[in-house]
Amino acid sequence: MLRIGLLGCGRIGHVHAKSVSQVDGAVVMAVADAYPETAQTLAAVTGAKVMQAKALITSELVDAVVIGTPTDTHYDFIHACAAAGKPIFCEKPVDMSAGRIRECIKAVEAADVPFLTAFNRRFDPNFARVQDLITKGEIGNVELVTILSRDPSPPPISYVESSGGLFRDMTIHDFDMARFLLGEEPVSVHAVGSALVNPEIGKVGDVDTAAVTLATASGKICQISNSRRASYGYDQRIEVHGSQGMLRAENVLENTVEMATATGFTKAPAQHFFLQRYEAAYRAEMRHFINAVTNGIPVTPSITDGLRAQILADAATLSCKEGRTITLD
Amino acid sequence: MLRIGLLGCGRIGHVHAKSVSQVDGAVVMAVADAYPETAQTLAAVTGAKVMQAKALITSELVDAVVIGTPTDTHYDFIHACAAAGKPIFCEKPVDMSAGRIRECIKAVEAADVPFLTAFNRRFDPNFARVQDLITKGEIGNVELVTILSRDPSPPPISYVESSGGLFRDMTIHDFDMARFLLGEEPVSVHAVGSALVNPEIGKVGDVDTAAVTLATASGKICQISNSRRASYGYDQRIEVHGSQGMLRAENVLENTVEMATATGFTKAPAQHFFLQRYEAAYRAEMRHFINAVTNGIPVTPSITDGLRAQILADAATLSCKEGRTITLD
Amino acid sequence: MLRIGLLGCGRIGHVHAKSVSQVDGAVVMAVADAYPETAQTLAAVTGAKVMQAKALITSELVDAVVIGTPTDTHYDFIHACAAAGKPIFCEKPVDMSAGRIRECIKAVEAADVPFLTAFNRRFDPNFARVQDLITKGEIGNVELVTILSRDPSPPPISYVESSGGLFRDMTIHDFDMARFLLGEEPVSVHAVGSALVNPEIGKVGDVDTAAVTLATASGKICQISNSRRASYGYDQRIEVHGSQGMLRAENVLENTVEMATATGFTKAPAQHFFLQRYEAAYRAEMRHFINAVTNGIPVTPSITDGLRAQILADAATLSCKEGRTITLD
Amino acid sequence: MLRIGLLGCGRIGHVHAKSVSQVDGAVVMAVADAYPETAQTLAAVTGAKVMQAKALITSELVDAVVIGTPTDTHYDFIHACAAAGKPIFCEKPVDMSAGRIRECIKAVEAADVPFLTAFNRRFDPNFARVQDLITKGEIGNVELVTILSRDPSPPPISYVESSGGLFRDMTIHDFDMARFLLGEEPVSVHAVGSALVNPEIGKVGDVDTAAVTLATASGKICQISNSRRASYGYDQRIEVHGSQGMLRAENVLENTVEMATATGFTKAPAQHFFLQRYEAAYRAEMRHFINAVTNGIPVTPSITDGLRAQILADAATLSCKEGRTITLD
Repeated sequence: MLRIGLLGCGRIGHVHAKSVSQVDGAVVMAVADAYPETAQTLAAVTGAKVMQAKALITSELVDAVVIGTPTDTHYDFIHACAAAGKPIFCEKPVDMSAGRIRECIKAVEAADVPFLTAFNRRFDPNFARVQDLITKGEIGNVELVTILSRDPSPPPISYVESSGGLFRDMTIHDFDMARFLLGEEPVSVHAVGSALVNPEIGKVGDVDTAAVTLATASGKICQISNSRRASYGYDQRIEVHGSQGMLRAENVLENTVEMATATGFTKAPAQHFFLQRYEAAYRAEMRHFINAVTNGIPVTPSITDGLRAQILADAATLSCKEGRTITLD
Repeated sequence: MLRIGLLGCGRIGHVHAKSVSQVDGAVVMAVADAYPETAQTLAAVTGAKVMQAKALITSELVDAVVIGTPTDTHYDFIHACAAAGKPIFCEKPVDMSAGRIRECIKAVEAADVPFLTAFNRRFDPNFARVQDLITKGEIGNVELVTILSRDPSPPPISYVESSGGLFRDMTIHDFDMARFLLGEEPVSVHAVGSALVNPEIGKVGDVDTAAVTLATASGKICQISNSRRASYGYDQRIEVHGSQGMLRAENVLENTVEMATATGFTKAPAQHFFLQRYEAAYRAEMRHFINAVTNGIPVTPSITDGLRAQILADAATLSCKEGRTITLD
Repeated sequence: MLRIGLLGCGRIGHVHAKSVSQVDGAVVMAVADAYPETAQTLAAVTGAKVMQAKALITSELVDAVVIGTPTDTHYDFIHACAAAGKPIFCEKPVDMSAGRIRECIKAVEAADVPFLTAFNRRFDPNFARVQDLITKGEIGNVELVTILSRDPSPPPISYVESSGGLFRDMTIHDFDMARFLLGEEPVSVHAVGSALVNPEIGKVGDVDTAAVTLATASGKICQISNSRRASYGYDQRIEVHGSQGMLRAENVLENTVEMATATGFTKAPAQHFFLQRYEAAYRAEMRHFINAVTNGIPVTPSITDGLRAQILADAATLSCKEGRTITLD
Repeated sequence: MLRIGLLGCGRIGHVHAKSVSQVDGAVVMAVADAYPETAQTLAAVTGAKVMQAKALITSELVDAVVIGTPTDTHYDFIHACAAAGKPIFCEKPVDMSAGRIRECIKAVEAADVPFLTAFNRRFDPNFARVQDLITKGEIGNVELVTILSRDPSPPPISYVESSGGLFRDMTIHDFDMARFLLGEEPVSVHAVGSALVNPEIGKVGDVDTAAVTLATASGKICQISNSRRASYGYDQRIEVHGSQGMLRAENVLENTVEMATATGFTKAPAQHFFLQRYEAAYRAEMRHFINAVTNGIPVTPSITDGLRAQILADAATLSCKEGRTITLD
């Protein structure tokens, strides 16, 4: 039985707690949150014990730690977990600073603890299947990747201001997906963006509509299309063009019903809410973490994957600002 | 060069004339119609000579005859063509009476002239592909056939009154398609019908909404769904379930554009007009006739196919009227 | 808190137990099974108490009873539950005999207890949406219903022998769906069937491939297509053609991935396993039962719905055997 | 009757001749080709007169000229046509040099003759419908355009060497489509490319796999994805994301048949051959030219459209070579 300690009892904490409850061989043993009532609520649902974060990390009751707290707290918690020799499941981004992520990597490697960066989309059954078919060689060599990723509606300006910007907050998922599908590191990054959805977003220095191009050393190319608005639901599609074929994962619609009238044939909108759209992914992600830690097999995506995505996000932010292509080492 | 004589210069005559013009090695040489001006109009378009029907049939200028005149004239024209030794392309139905079709068969067989019953849907590229894949064994043995065939809107009552009824006028295409796909003769026929689209149709003794079930001696089953109304276009679909798989031909939409809004994902309606929907079928049908006659290869569907479909239509009409299953020999 | 007693701890018992666990305000309090170990297994998972069936039904710890035992036990358990004044959730079919179902109805009505006949497909989100859109008038008046229902593979002969035949075992779901969508009682039933999948099925007097036609007094028509085999998954589709449009619920595929190669564009097979395909339906069905019983609102589908479907199944069985249309009162 | 003179009797000359033959009110009157036999062949098919190019342009028998000769001859023929006051239908690209196109524009404007740059894809019924729906405001303001354009297989190296490179030869269609859909001029161009399909293409200094990003002054963005290889047919898709919805035109498949087996649900590949895929576009393009010239209404796309696309192609070529974003005035 793997006894999980949960740091952060907000929305994503509840998601992870529910995931743990659905995996045989794991239990949420302890929870912690800066707001005691928030911790109490989740404790009531799970039957877990409420602890202080530092105590939870070092507690003998806790075998592994899930970090779902605000980003700026990750650094300290990661170091504490490493020091305590506890396996870590950490929400993305690991940190807003690539330099600080590198320090975390050192701590994690020194302690030799398993670490999962929670890029949940890798565990979406559809996207995972695409990657699996690529690995099996079904479409030959990957040549062109297209990622279409659009939110149903923009976040509040207050969130935008502290988010690090679209590329670090939203596109970071696509950067990880790009690496996952390309199977090779991007060496150049180009990004353009504008504030078409909400001019206020532009006023605080961010963009809400963007396009990114990544290229690898061997010449593979990935294009990402982002928007903070999609009237037709949460638009989440990927397409991979290879030397021998093409794979695409289409949107997940609300249902399979089609209505035909004089207007034509209408299917349901895409599922709107990310927790619904990626519910299976969250479940599979936690199952992987628990199984890997329990059985001593490698955990993925790693903390290095977290670093790589952050580097791409930084490069895209710079590219968009300065209007030039950024070359990576 | 195969010189075609066209009997009947109405809408379908124009369709066939255009088809002939697109086949190398054939030309419309002569046209005839009960209304001289109607004949003149088609003659002007094609450069053909206007003749009287009987003269056209026996003319040395005409190698083969296309019969596109009203059904009650077919019998005499078929006999005349057979007597003249001319290959025949005859619009469906061959005749409203199975007995009279049998007499036509005798004449055609005695004269040994090629005869095509114009069940054009067999030449639709999609339906032809389904049948071809069946023949190649791609889905194993055929077990269940589903034919969904619905007109965009009902014909005028005057047409309904003289049409012989829905089963003989509209379903007859589906009976031929059923035989084409089943690859075996139906031995039982069951039909139900009602007048839901227009009560006037019921008052003149016909139905506008119907379902037919056919079964063959070996136990294959076909279901047909008919309506005289479909708000979403000309609904023409087939599906064949076999021991190793399933084939279906979907509707042909007006275009490939999909619009996504808060309502969902909307594709265009099905093509509405039968001449548009089956344009490729009409072209392929005539090409087959011309090539077959020119090269001495068998013409299909045959006049016997015309008889078989008519027998099924008669049986369905009787079944619907009397509420019982009709068994065929 | 609604305390549920579960009769029958086999596969479907586990499904219902899991459904109960996911509804707030309900708990599995007691379980019973003819095989004590089977009951123990489910008790271990749920934390429920193991009881004898009769004791469970009358226990003060149990507010409502879920009957998931073999069909021939339903009659007695229903009478016992009615006598004990307990709300009943009963697996389909209520009983193999329409006469005995009528007796159950009397007992249930006399006791005035809520009764749900577990036609779970009504609760499938896709099918439920179709029915909801019909009710809202989105396609006008219903005219033609098409139900395509095909199992991935046939059951063992031993099961077939005791199943009551295809129409009572498998098509019964489609009969209920037909009534659900037609919104009117069928007055005539016609069925044909054959044993194409496995000749052994024919030898024991059953069919594995069938087509049924239902018609209502106002002239609405429903066609059902059944097979015990579908290489491409569990084929579960419905289509409703109305005066102003058409609705269809397509198959639920295993994932949204499409692969394009020289062969064409390939999507995943339909979900194979009925517990996967109808998982959401089972959940929603139990949620409805619990909410309805708790809040005193009507439960549906009713025991009368169970009777009506059984009558249609009996009629289809007779029609198929005797080759004639069966008229219902 | 508009009497057309055709310069260039190769493959595209035959296409245009056939298009003219299908428009009432126009006829191919004269044809010319550097190879007399090539001209004779087309003359035989059309009944046109064979002439020398210069004579054709000035002939009193010719009302308008279609230029389908090699690109390096366009400049002189355009000037000659302008001098003769003849309306011009000119294959793309107008010229390989933007400077020379500007000179052509001067000549055409001075002569005030209608001029159509043959970007046939604007006339594809699907793409035209997308643009029409945008214009009608169906998706609000255009924000993100995605163009996926992939050839079934690469051209011979000899062709590649003289083609001006992928961006001028192939992507130029996409540049025009981008302008057509964006409704605004791009002001920045970024391109990356590699030779993944055939290393020989890389050796002659070209790419066969590429991604282009365009941005307009108001912040609209277009992404283009190109490959010289697509195992699944001629991949031609566009997608436009707007403030209120999204439009996409999917590939045109070879037929509507879907086959279901244990592998899944397979549809036909995309139509492979560009003359098949864009047949309707070629017909509509010529119909527009003839109608516009005959009725004195504006011809589109204009020679300026030809220039703009060429400028984008030049910029993309430079961007790809130098690894930087190109800013346009």
